[in-house]
Amino acid sequence: MRRIDLNCDLGESYGAWTMGQDEQVLGLVSSANIACGFHAGDPDTMRRTVGMATAAGVAIGAHPSLPDLQGFGRREMAVSAAEAQSLVLYQIGALWAFAKSAGTRLHHVKPHGALYNMAARDPALAAAIAAAVAGFDRALILVGLAGSALLQAGRDAGLRVAAEAFVDRRYQADGSLTPRREADAVIKDPDQAVAQALSIVLHGHAVARDGSRVDIAADTLCIHGDKPDAALFAQRLRTALSEAGVQIAAPAVGDGA
Amino acid sequence: MRRIDLNCDLGESYGAWTMGQDEQVLGLVSSANIACGFHAGDPDTMRRTVGMATAAGVAIGAHPSLPDLQGFGRREMAVSAAEAQSLVLYQIGALWAFAKSAGTRLHHVKPHGALYNMAARDPALAAAIAAAVAGFDRALILVGLAGSALLQAGRDAGLRVAAEAFVDRRYQADGSLTPRREADAVIKDPDQAVAQALSIVLHGHAVARDGSRVDIAADTLCIHGDKPDAALFAQRLRTALSEAGVQIAAPAVGDGA
Amino acid sequence: MRRIDLNCDLGESYGAWTMGQDEQVLGLVSSANIACGFHAGDPDTMRRTVGMATAAGVAIGAHPSLPDLQGFGRREMAVSAAEAQSLVLYQIGALWAFAKSAGTRLHHVKPHGALYNMAARDPALAAAIAAAVAGFDRALILVGLAGSALLQAGRDAGLRVAAEAFVDRRYQADGSLTPRREADAVIKDPDQAVAQALSIVLHGHAVARDGSRVDIAADTLCIHGDKPDAALFAQRLRTALSEAGVQIAAPAVGDGA
Amino acid sequence: MRRIDLNCDLGESYGAWTMGQDEQVLGLVSSANIACGFHAGDPDTMRRTVGMATAAGVAIGAHPSLPDLQGFGRREMAVSAAEAQSLVLYQIGALWAFAKSAGTRLHHVKPHGALYNMAARDPALAAAIAAAVAGFDRALILVGLAGSALLQAGRDAGLRVAAEAFVDRRYQADGSLTPRREADAVIKDPDQAVAQALSIVLHGHAVARDGSRVDIAADTLCIHGDKPDAALFAQRLRTALSEAGVQIAAPAVGDGA
Repeated sequence: MRRIDLNCDLGESYGAWTMGQDEQVLGLVSSANIACGFHAGDPDTMRRTVGMATAAGVAIGAHPSLPDLQGFGRREMAVSAAEAQSLVLYQIGALWAFAKSAGTRLHHVKPHGALYNMAARDPALAAAIAAAVAGFDRALILVGLAGSALLQAGRDAGLRVAAEAFVDRRYQADGSLTPRREADAVIKDPDQAVAQALSIVLHGHAVARDGSRVDIAADTLCIHGDKPDAALFAQRLRTALSEAGVQIAAPAVGDGA
Repeated sequence: MRRIDLNCDLGESYGAWTMGQDEQVLGLVSSANIACGFHAGDPDTMRRTVGMATAAGVAIGAHPSLPDLQGFGRREMAVSAAEAQSLVLYQIGALWAFAKSAGTRLHHVKPHGALYNMAARDPALAAAIAAAVAGFDRALILVGLAGSALLQAGRDAGLRVAAEAFVDRRYQADGSLTPRREADAVIKDPDQAVAQALSIVLHGHAVARDGSRVDIAADTLCIHGDKPDAALFAQRLRTALSEAGVQIAAPAVGDGA
Repeated sequence: MRRIDLNCDLGESYGAWTMGQDEQVLGLVSSANIACGFHAGDPDTMRRTVGMATAAGVAIGAHPSLPDLQGFGRREMAVSAAEAQSLVLYQIGALWAFAKSAGTRLHHVKPHGALYNMAARDPALAAAIAAAVAGFDRALILVGLAGSALLQAGRDAGLRVAAEAFVDRRYQADGSLTPRREADAVIKDPDQAVAQALSIVLHGHAVARDGSRVDIAADTLCIHGDKPDAALFAQRLRTALSEAGVQIAAPAVGDGA
Repeated sequence: MRRIDLNCDLGESYGAWTMGQDEQVLGLVSSANIACGFHAGDPDTMRRTVGMATAAGVAIGAHPSLPDLQGFGRREMAVSAAEAQSLVLYQIGALWAFAKSAGTRLHHVKPHGALYNMAARDPALAAAIAAAVAGFDRALILVGLAGSALLQAGRDAGLRVAAEAFVDRRYQADGSLTPRREADAVIKDPDQAVAQALSIVLHGHAVARDGSRVDIAADTLCIHGDKPDAALFAQRLRTALSEAGVQIAAPAVGDGA
């Protein structure tokens, strides 16, 4: 039986500001990437989110970011590899404390926003992030863009990795995502998004922007939780996957290699 | 043989700013309280400091603070008990990640600055901090002011505690520290400071500000590392303690109670 | 003709997080207190909010806060009077830059949250805030709680002041606000809130929590913009005031004394 | 008589951390670029530094930065032009408040660190910064690297500009600075540094890294104040310039265009 993970970014509120529909989304995904304070997620929010995710039986992962609260971690920054290693380690540890205190454990690490994008293409930065994860706990799964430098660095560091694909982002012929500045970067039609998800999960490929077929080997699909109809769409995707005989479950935690 | 711990706050640099003489001080103390990013200590500094402390064979502890970089964690803030628990947990975890990655472990937790002072007198806040430590790892030692609400909360939570005394601060008759606004709050004469240390370690009491005898049961003495002559004074104190037959060593890590 | 100002806190979004219904509220108030970056309001938000308020013809004021993004400026902090003066000056200047750049000017300064509450009762802190405002521009109006130490400090510094009253907070017999921890601190019934507003504006008094009459001399009424029905309530209050023959307008900017 | 400005970055302490030898340096320069809180310079430090610079009769300028306290504003960040305009405006205003309160005014604006470097080569970013300055006060002088996009943007916006040259940085044949990663990026020999300064001021050119002559039209020379011997070197440079008949003075403030 085919199997896929559905992951969502969670715990992205901060102090008096709320973001996302965390409670609803938790019932629909198998993995949660929880903000660690650098782009979102103050300590109270982290504690509450870990508690909710634990109660929902969802696999908990750290979602470390560049230090940029004002820019929500979306602005690329010229951090050195050593700086990246330190800030990822710091954030994993911080989230781990809430998991340990709640009687659970961390399952994976998925860099956030600009750090995710930079690590997809920069081998030195990717290696630093993989070193942080491996130095902390070799059983953690490193999640990154399918085909990225980050996944390669994870494998090189002896980590289990999970390749991520996007349901509602348009792929280019080379497997990269169409930049958001392009008008058709986001697939807005839910039917088309579900069709892309099924094609990736069942057949391992998607239709690229130029109409060509592009191979996408995915272990996990990213659901965006910050849109008004996020829960509705996630429910629909789950139904379509179920009807196609696909099981939704987080990847098993590895033992390193 | 009598035994006492010498502890010092460490890793209080931040980014381009340096503070303290960490390398020199590490050779003279048995415990280091390492800043966790909220009052000082960026992730790179934390990683470097943990590495140095590990190499020096010094017991490593977390030094969590109120979130106040600008005020160096010295300004009291009306955080709730729940907020305090979350922010202490966050910071312990962050430091723990660097310790784990360096192949070592945390030994103790000592709140910093205003948080330390507030927890000395506020039982609810003290209980929240003790709950954070106990929820993370019951083997950690909680360090607080001798006779404080924090130590009581630690004992109530089943933690081992270490009572801290001050070598160069003047005690009042009730065992509290003379507030810094008073002219004689700090003992500036090194001879007097060494004498107070010996009196506390050997006899369990000090001479209070009003000339009376005040009982001080101390497991650890605090050395300040940010003064120009900190290393010189620490060396002198070590010699005096050795000549008096006192062994300098970190408290053994407990197993909870 | 009687006259009253309606003021509202605005521009309290931050980066990716939004708060309040600024556009709707701007059509209903005569004064806006704009966040200056310390509790909310990143530079982009400040620029946009100043632009919107200018377009709406609303009087623009600075809404400086303690440096506490995580706590939204609501947690009291032990800042010194000198620190308070500096941080108020900093924030007034920052907002002033956007006002000047937009071709308008600042009209008033109203401290936010915990700073507002602390300045209501602490004459030294109040004097520091008044000194910051007077040092910047003696034509600025200082807004504070009716009967507070802040207003007295403003007058002592030769500033024009505006006394603020609350429409939906329950007063105590001494003119202070019932603390939020009390069940009846907030007046939830809109009819009662409108009645309290009319009583204050037309007669200069309100019914206190214990049923006694308490004098409230108000120049401005505070409208909360962060509730779902804020705009609806503000519209209703405007109508009630108009029908009672009250003109809604910002206080005239003073010339100092 | 030839004339040159000597400028130095000042007020780069933060809270409990100190940096630089501000008092000594103030006696040796004609212009001070004061940190505005985003890379260094808390509000108290800004107030104190403005006071000291005013007392020393030195021209005061804003030294705005990317929001990166941890990286001291030295890490490039992908801010948009609109974000850059807002954050420069914010910081100019904040510093302006301290100047106004001290009875003085701002004279110039010089972006700091990564923002300076990015604005030297990116016309859109440079235009945003120039727009911020012009929108605030058209009499302010915009300081940037000689030959940079920032100076061009300043001229295009109708601002007076001041071209900056470096005394102790090695130039390349195209007028750019040798990157710091190169071994000979910094001129460590004080004789050579003084010689380069004299050549630029008296003859308008320097000897490039490859031995060729490179034209450098400079209005102001940058002195680094954070080295132990900064004051000593500045004194020596002043003497050499005086002996060559060069007057040291800040550029006259313009009236815009």
